[in-house]
Amino acid sequence: MREVTKQAPGLAAVLVGNRRDSQSYVRHKIKACEEVGISSFLAELPEDSPQDVVANVVSNFNRDPSVHGILVQLPLPKHMDEEKVLDAISLEKDVDGFHPLNVGNLAMRGREPLFIPCAAKACMELLLRYGVELIGKNRHHATVSVIHAHSKNPEDISREADIIISAAGVPNLVRRNWIKRGAIVIDVGTNPIERWMGDEIRDECHNDGVGFPMSIGIVTLLDEDPNSEHGYYLTGDVCYEEALQLVSAITPVPGGVGPVTIAMLLSNTLDSAKRAFGLS
Amino acid sequence: MREVTKQAPGLAAVLVGNRRDSQSYVRHKIKACEEVGISSFLAELPEDSPQDVVANVVSNFNRDPSVHGILVQLPLPKHMDEEKVLDAISLEKDVDGFHPLNVGNLAMRGREPLFIPCAAKACMELLLRYGVELIGKNRHHATVSVIHAHSKNPEDISREADIIISAAGVPNLVRRNWIKRGAIVIDVGTNPIERWMGDEIRDECHNDGVGFPMSIGIVTLLDEDPNSEHGYYLTGDVCYEEALQLVSAITPVPGGVGPVTIAMLLSNTLDSAKRAFGLS
Repeated sequence: MREVTKQAPGLAAVLVGNRRDSQSYVRHKIKACEEVGISSFLAELPEDSPQDVVANVVSNFNRDPSVHGILVQLPLPKHMDEEKVLDAISLEKDVDGFHPLNVGNLAMRGREPLFIPCAAKACMELLLRYGVELIGKNRHHATVSVIHAHSKNPEDISREADIIISAAGVPNLVRRNWIKRGAIVIDVGTNPIERWMGDEIRDECHNDGVGFPMSIGIVTLLDEDPNSEHGYYLTGDVCYEEALQLVSAITPVPGGVGPVTIAMLLSNTLDSAKRAFGLS
Repeated sequence: MREVTKQAPGLAAVLVGNRRDSQSYVRHKIKACEEVGISSFLAELPEDSPQDVVANVVSNFNRDPSVHGILVQLPLPKHMDEEKVLDAISLEKDVDGFHPLNVGNLAMRGREPLFIPCAAKACMELLLRYGVELIGKNRHHATVSVIHAHSKNPEDISREADIIISAAGVPNLVRRNWIKRGAIVIDVGTNPIERWMGDEIRDECHNDGVGFPMSIGIVTLLDEDPNSEHGYYLTGDVCYEEALQLVSAITPVPGGVGPVTIAMLLSNTLDSAKRAFGLS
């Protein structure tokens, strides 16, 4: 593309406040841009920024022809109206796919959204790449059951599934009795657990034989800040070790859906740039 | 409201072509408007109307301050781009709730669409009015499974359900073995079956003891055109007589979800008028 356009695709990230996990996610996204030759632009704003300042930053990126994708890292600080900030992103640059028009066009039969939300696209991409057939395949005609915080006996519903996709944000939610033998598990949960540096990471699903959770590692520089006394590690929604004994395939956390989600963000940015350059 | 505004809410219907069932649906909607004091405007256009003529009719209704709701009766003739025609309806007057922005806002957590699609709203209203608790109740936290044309063993999934909502458009799809004893069935299917006037209506799910479908009536003026040699009758997706032996409640077709859907259309039109008059 650069040979034709002399211009690289560009991704702009807006980060408000100082959540460690958000900072880390944004860093990963920018690093991924560097690796594939996408220009990146980062706006970091303090926690107490007024909402119109954030909206203004978004507007400037909307107008900037070298920016083809804009992502606002969520969650925003509590005093902000997340909906208003997200709605300010121009539809053509909404590479996260969070604009309600994109969501509506994704939900409606016969319509095509400009962008598919990256984590959902990552799940589909993983299934596709590993050759998992969704029933009927034609536009993914699978039977979908949505398990909910208020669902009675969620494990009974989950245990019927050929493919389990968990995005609950609850560590160790999906246990052995939730999983049918031979099922495929995609763990979208990325739950940051804060610990002191050097603490042991324990797997709450297993005890060590004398009643304590089994140690599975030590908290090191997982937040990539060498001056910190704190560290954190990421854990998914699924008891990985338990699941491993039952499943035919499973994505780990970290290192599973996360990196593929970032790849989909880059892919959406590339699509956006192609549309802007009239190449699609 | 009229005492305050001196103006009635107004609903505009656009009907293209001469499908008997569409004509009948639109007539029912206009009649319902008359009954409750909502002004109605009907644009009937021939089957072969160019798309820009239809779009122009919609635009005029968009600009007309006495119109607060616009519905385009579907399906449109095959030569038209349904998506483009629907997108031409102003978001503020989209009382059918088919605009992708409304669908997106309906799908997304924490957002409110301007209008909820009438048939879906009718199902919720029926459950509410008859005191059926959806699990957790708070914003309707039910566990939802979507059965699909490509679902394997759909009857096994359906038989697990406390509440079955069928909107497949397939007569006699939901049989005895799809239904758990005590379930609640909402039949959204409205399938027009064409027959000659005076023909017997037969229930395909039951035979008369000698191998023929049981007669359950005679085709009369169900399409309300006294000069027609044809009649049609409506049937739902569910074998009503079979279901009746198992369910704790069921909606009939006709006379179930249909009239409530029209009531929801009027309710959306009223909401729209209130917003236009600054009364909400």
